[in-house]
Amino acid sequence: MSDRPQDPRHQRGLELMNEIDPADGGRMLDEFAAIAPDLGRFLVEFAFADIYSRSVLSLRERQFVRLAALAAMGVGGAPMRANINSALNVGVPVSDIAETFIQCLPYAGFPRVITAMEQLKAIVEERPDQD
Amino acid sequence: MSDRPQDPRHQRGLELMNEIDPADGGRMLDEFAAIAPDLGRFLVEFAFADIYSRSVLSLRERQFVRLAALAAMGVGGAPMRANINSALNVGVPVSDIAETFIQCLPYAGFPRVITAMEQLKAIVEERPDQD
Amino acid sequence: MSDRPQDPRHQRGLELMNEIDPADGGRMLDEFAAIAPDLGRFLVEFAFADIYSRSVLSLRERQFVRLAALAAMGVGGAPMRANINSALNVGVPVSDIAETFIQCLPYAGFPRVITAMEQLKAIVEERPDQD
Amino acid sequence: MSDRPQDPRHQRGLELMNEIDPADGGRMLDEFAAIAPDLGRFLVEFAFADIYSRSVLSLRERQFVRLAALAAMGVGGAPMRANINSALNVGVPVSDIAETFIQCLPYAGFPRVITAMEQLKAIVEERPDQD
Amino acid sequence: MSDRPQDPRHQRGLELMNEIDPADGGRMLDEFAAIAPDLGRFLVEFAFADIYSRSVLSLRERQFVRLAALAAMGVGGAPMRANINSALNVGVPVSDIAETFIQCLPYAGFPRVITAMEQLKAIVEERPDQD
Amino acid sequence: MSDRPQDPRHQRGLELMNEIDPADGGRMLDEFAAIAPDLGRFLVEFAFADIYSRSVLSLRERQFVRLAALAAMGVGGAPMRANINSALNVGVPVSDIAETFIQCLPYAGFPRVITAMEQLKAIVEERPDQD
Repeated sequence: MSDRPQDPRHQRGLELMNEIDPADGGRMLDEFAAIAPDLGRFLVEFAFADIYSRSVLSLRERQFVRLAALAAMGVGGAPMRANINSALNVGVPVSDIAETFIQCLPYAGFPRVITAMEQLKAIVEERPDQD
Repeated sequence: MSDRPQDPRHQRGLELMNEIDPADGGRMLDEFAAIAPDLGRFLVEFAFADIYSRSVLSLRERQFVRLAALAAMGVGGAPMRANINSALNVGVPVSDIAETFIQCLPYAGFPRVITAMEQLKAIVEERPDQD
Repeated sequence: MSDRPQDPRHQRGLELMNEIDPADGGRMLDEFAAIAPDLGRFLVEFAFADIYSRSVLSLRERQFVRLAALAAMGVGGAPMRANINSALNVGVPVSDIAETFIQCLPYAGFPRVITAMEQLKAIVEERPDQD
Repeated sequence: MSDRPQDPRHQRGLELMNEIDPADGGRMLDEFAAIAPDLGRFLVEFAFADIYSRSVLSLRERQFVRLAALAAMGVGGAPMRANINSALNVGVPVSDIAETFIQCLPYAGFPRVITAMEQLKAIVEERPDQD
Repeated sequence: MSDRPQDPRHQRGLELMNEIDPADGGRMLDEFAAIAPDLGRFLVEFAFADIYSRSVLSLRERQFVRLAALAAMGVGGAPMRANINSALNVGVPVSDIAETFIQCLPYAGFPRVITAMEQLKAIVEERPDQD
Repeated sequence: MSDRPQDPRHQRGLELMNEIDPADGGRMLDEFAAIAPDLGRFLVEFAFADIYSRSVLSLRERQFVRLAALAAMGVGGAPMRANINSALNVGVPVSDIAETFIQCLPYAGFPRVITAMEQLKAIVEERPDQD
C-alpha cells in the first residue's frame, strides 16, 4: 500500500491510519492509486501524520472535533463514514457520536445534522460490534 | 433581560448563558431586543437550554464540538467570539482552542482555519486573564 | 410516535407536522427513534412548534423561505424531499416551487438549483396528485 | 450608467433596478465600472432582467426567496444590504424581514441568522423612514 | 431541443454546448423541459452564451476555473459530471483534471477533493476513450 | 522566520512563498508565531511545498485554480488578498483575475463573485504597479 517505506512521516501516518481505521483508509488509498496516487499520499502524510497524530487534544477529543467539522460542512459519503468508523474503532460509543451531531444543531441546522445521523445509523446497522 | 421569568426552560438557558459567558450573551440579547426579541429567546431556550445544557459530553468536549463546527462553517464575527470567550471562561486553555482549529485543517482547509485563528488571536490580546 | 403527550409545545409541533406532512415527518421520527430520539423531538419542538408554527408570514410564504434556504445551502435528500412534499401538501403548485428555485439562480448558482430541481422532478413523478 | 441603451433586455433590467433600489444598484455598477464592467452588466441583464423581473411569484414573495437564500448562504456585505434595502423599498415591513431570517433558524443555524439580523438592524438604524 | 431558433444569444450558447458536451447538455435540457423549461434556457443563454463563450481566458483555463469552483463548493452529481466530461472532450488530460482537484486541497480540504476525485474516477472508468 | 532551516521540505515551501508573495506570507507567519506557530509551518510545508510547488499545471493555471476555489467558497480576508497578490506578482494581469471571478458566476452566484471582485478592486487601488 505504501511506496515510500523509507519516509518516516509517511510511515507514521500509515501506522496511525492502520491503527484506527485500516478498512476505510486502505480502501481510499486503493481507490485513487491509479488516478491520483498523491491524494492518498497527502492523506497519509498531512491528514494523519502531520495533524491527526498530534496529541495536544486526547484521541477522543480529536474524534469529536473531526465529526463536528464534517457534520457542519455537510460532508457525507466516504469521508464521513471513515470518521464515524474511526471513532467507533477507538471506543467512542454510538451515543457520544450521536450527541456530537446533536450539539451541532444550533450552528449547522437540522438538515446537515440529519444527514450525519443517517450515516451513523447506516453504519451502526452494518457493524455487528455495535448496538 | 428576560421577560419570561416563570418559564423553567428559559430560566435554565439564561442561567447557563450567564454562567459561561454573560458578556457576549447579554450583548446578543440586548442587540436584538427591539428588532427581533424572539431571536434572543430562541438562543436562550434552544441553543442553551435544549442543547448546550445536555451533559452526555463533558463541558470541555462540548466546547470543542462548537468551536470545530463554527470554524468549519467559516463563521466569524459575534458567534465565533462568543464561543471562544465561553471556552476560555470555563477553563479551556488558549493552546487547546488553537489546536481545535489546527485539527480542522484537513477538513475545512487553511482559509477557514486562518479566519478562526485570527479571531482567537484578537480575543487573547484583549483579555488580560490570558497569555 | 410521541412519548411526551403532556407537553403542550410538543403537541403543537406534532399537530403541525401531521397536518402538513405526516409521511415524511413520521418517517424521520421513526428513523432516529433508536439511535437519537431527541433529534426527532427537537425537530418537532423547535423546527415545527417554535418556528414553523409562527404566523407572521403566511403559510405559503414560509414554504418559499424554507425551500429557498434549503436550495441555497445545497441541501438535498430527506430534508429537501420533506419540504417539497409539505409545500405540495398545503397547495403550493409545482410551478411555484420550480420558480422559487429559479429565483435562487443569481445567488446560489446553477449547480445547487439543478440539484433542487432534480428532486422536485423526482417527487412530481412519484405523486399521482401532481402533474 | 448604461452603455447599452439600445438593448431591450438591458433596459428592462436597469428599469427594475432603478425602481426597487437605485442607490445600491447604481453603487454596484459604478464600483466595478473600471475593473470589471461586465459584472455590473450581467447583474442588470441576468439577475434583474432575466430572473428578478419574472412575475410567477409576487414581488413580496420574491423578496422572501432572495433574503432567505442570502441568509442561508451566510452572505453579508453589499449583496445582503442591497436586498434588505430593496425589500424595505417595495414595502416589506422590517418585522417581515426579521421573520424571514427567524424562519431560516432550523435550516441555516443561529450564526448565519445572527449575521443577517445584524445587517438588518444596522440598516434600520440608518434609514429615517423605518422604525 | 431549442424553441428559440431566432435568438442569436440562445443559438450561440447552444452551439457552444453542443460543441463541448452535447450528451450532458442535451440530457439537462430534456430533463427539465416539462417542469422548468426556463432553467435549461438560462443555462444555455447565461452559463454558456454570456459567460462560458468569453475568450479572455483560454478554453483550457476556463475548464480549470470551473472544475476548481465546483470542487471547492462540494458540488457533485450532474453538474460536476458535465464539467469533467467537457474538460475531457476538449482535450484536457485526466491527469490535469486530477491535478486541479489536488491543487484545491489546502483551500477546500480533503473531503470535497475526495468527492470530486471519486466522480472523475467513475467517469474515466466509463469512457472508452480515456485511460 | 523559519525555525527549521535543515528541513528540505520546509525550505522548499519557504522559498516558493518568498518568491511569489513574501509580504503576505511573512505577515501570516508572524501573525501566528506566538499563538499557533504550527499553523504557519503547515502553510509553508503543505500548502506551499507539497501542493503549490507541483508543476503539473503551469504557475498561471495554478493561480486560476486557487482564485476560483477561494471565490467559490466565499473566502475573503487575508487568504484571498494573499492569492490575488500572488497572482499579480507572478504576472497575471488584473483583467485575467477579474475574468476568473466572472467565470465563477454561474456556479458560485453573484454575491460571492462580488465579494471577490471588491477585494481585487481594493488591492488594485493600493498597488502602484497595477492600473
